[in-house]
Amino acid sequence: MSAVIISGKELATEKRTFIKEQVTKLRQFDAVQPTLAVVLVGDDPASHSYVKAKKKACEEAGINCLLEHYPSTLTQEELLSRIDYFNRNEEIHGILVQLPLPKHIHENSIIEAISPEKDVDGFHPINIGKMMINQDSFIPCTPYGILEMIRSLNVSITGKHVIVVGRSNIVGKPVGQLFLKEDATITYCHSKTKNLSDITRQADILIVAVGRANLISSSYVKEGAIVIDVGVNRLESGKLCGDVQFDSVKEKASYITPVPGGVGPMTITMLLQNTLQSAQKKASQNKTNIL
Amino acid sequence: MSAVIISGKELATEKRTFIKEQVTKLRQFDAVQPTLAVVLVGDDPASHSYVKAKKKACEEAGINCLLEHYPSTLTQEELLSRIDYFNRNEEIHGILVQLPLPKHIHENSIIEAISPEKDVDGFHPINIGKMMINQDSFIPCTPYGILEMIRSLNVSITGKHVIVVGRSNIVGKPVGQLFLKEDATITYCHSKTKNLSDITRQADILIVAVGRANLISSSYVKEGAIVIDVGVNRLESGKLCGDVQFDSVKEKASYITPVPGGVGPMTITMLLQNTLQSAQKKASQNKTNIL
Repeated sequence: MSAVIISGKELATEKRTFIKEQVTKLRQFDAVQPTLAVVLVGDDPASHSYVKAKKKACEEAGINCLLEHYPSTLTQEELLSRIDYFNRNEEIHGILVQLPLPKHIHENSIIEAISPEKDVDGFHPINIGKMMINQDSFIPCTPYGILEMIRSLNVSITGKHVIVVGRSNIVGKPVGQLFLKEDATITYCHSKTKNLSDITRQADILIVAVGRANLISSSYVKEGAIVIDVGVNRLESGKLCGDVQFDSVKEKASYITPVPGGVGPMTITMLLQNTLQSAQKKASQNKTNIL
Repeated sequence: MSAVIISGKELATEKRTFIKEQVTKLRQFDAVQPTLAVVLVGDDPASHSYVKAKKKACEEAGINCLLEHYPSTLTQEELLSRIDYFNRNEEIHGILVQLPLPKHIHENSIIEAISPEKDVDGFHPINIGKMMINQDSFIPCTPYGILEMIRSLNVSITGKHVIVVGRSNIVGKPVGQLFLKEDATITYCHSKTKNLSDITRQADILIVAVGRANLISSSYVKEGAIVIDVGVNRLESGKLCGDVQFDSVKEKASYITPVPGGVGPMTITMLLQNTLQSAQKKASQNKTNIL
């Protein structure tokens, strides 16, 4: 039996339509224009194209995107001063500093300078901590997108064994905590895990976020598992591929995400969602202040 | 073969002797007196005895313990004002507010009011977040104590399968993250986990922190596993027991912790360690300021 392909692209389109409606309502009824400030430092081509895609997605959803692009000579103090401005500006609901930053800028100091209330990337340690202890927080976009993909299948997550391969700070670790909150049993595997395939074969939901082309063959996958492939790897041929051997694994899984067109489009969608959520919070605070 | 019993009591004594030596050095060479402020609100008998034990342990290690005891009518504002005083007082290196607090006080607001630099319990969301992304932070005392117990055995943690039963914010979740950082494969199980014993039998290191007397029988344990029992349950007879059926499991495990005398004494020890660490940091800042 061949797996159903989870189209992140289609789901993202659906969600973005809904986000756009909410944005319109906010503008009409609350006079709040959801706004995201994006800072790009330097000339990394990948960062350029990510930022461009984010700006385009914002605009399509009616979210205002203030993009500031600085040369790689920008000092840490200058960047901190821009963040301080964005933090204090009540018209700005989300702040995103595109990573990586030039080496002379201390990334953690920048992330921690962003107001946790505007940290729509969900990278601030206080948001990570709050997510872990089930408090209200921004959820990092890729893990959030993965959760939304699973939710869209209408399968129960409670008691499922979710196995995460990869333990990065922005995908692997938070996605495990997110599904733990959803009452799944969670296993984290990584480069030091022994007998990886013996473990991954137990997964009801297998999430792979390593960044190694075709790491996961069908012998790593249980019959009927849901397989989420977060990897985006460029082959020598120039073709993009995931961490999962799509053609063989899709014959064994019940659901599988493609690369490209799977998790990728969901990540930007959840950035829009987080920005909308922040603007909605602001609107409801405005109302409370008036009352 | 019967397991080696890991005596938390003996290990704690050893560590406290070492901590005491470091405290003496700090006083002699840096003129810094490690000091912990402890706040107890109300008359919960268990809280009383915990606080008493902490104060005694501090004093034995040469750490100054400022214990403030307030009636349960203390307001949230009054408590916040005390925390603010402790935060600003440079002679105080650690702040501990004994939980639970009376219902009219919002616990999270209190925890977040404590300066992360003095949060020796490691409960502030920013410390939890930093621990998760491998940044310098206070580690919650019970998880830290468990890690030290395993380290004392001189077995390699890398690649071991650590299975945690229980997902509380102060033990289960952080202890998993702590061992993930140590390159173990991690599984979180809990009340919604299906086929629990099939999973726990895969553990090289099994950590049980549920709070249900005798939950784990020998059929849950792999031959030769290391078993850490965090549970402290009082039976009707008045006797204390753990979450693990000690007598039968010790015939199968390679190492096991007893209850009492296992994890318990290590928790307070790591509180002393965190307070010492905070005072040492302060001493080194003093030196930098002089230079």
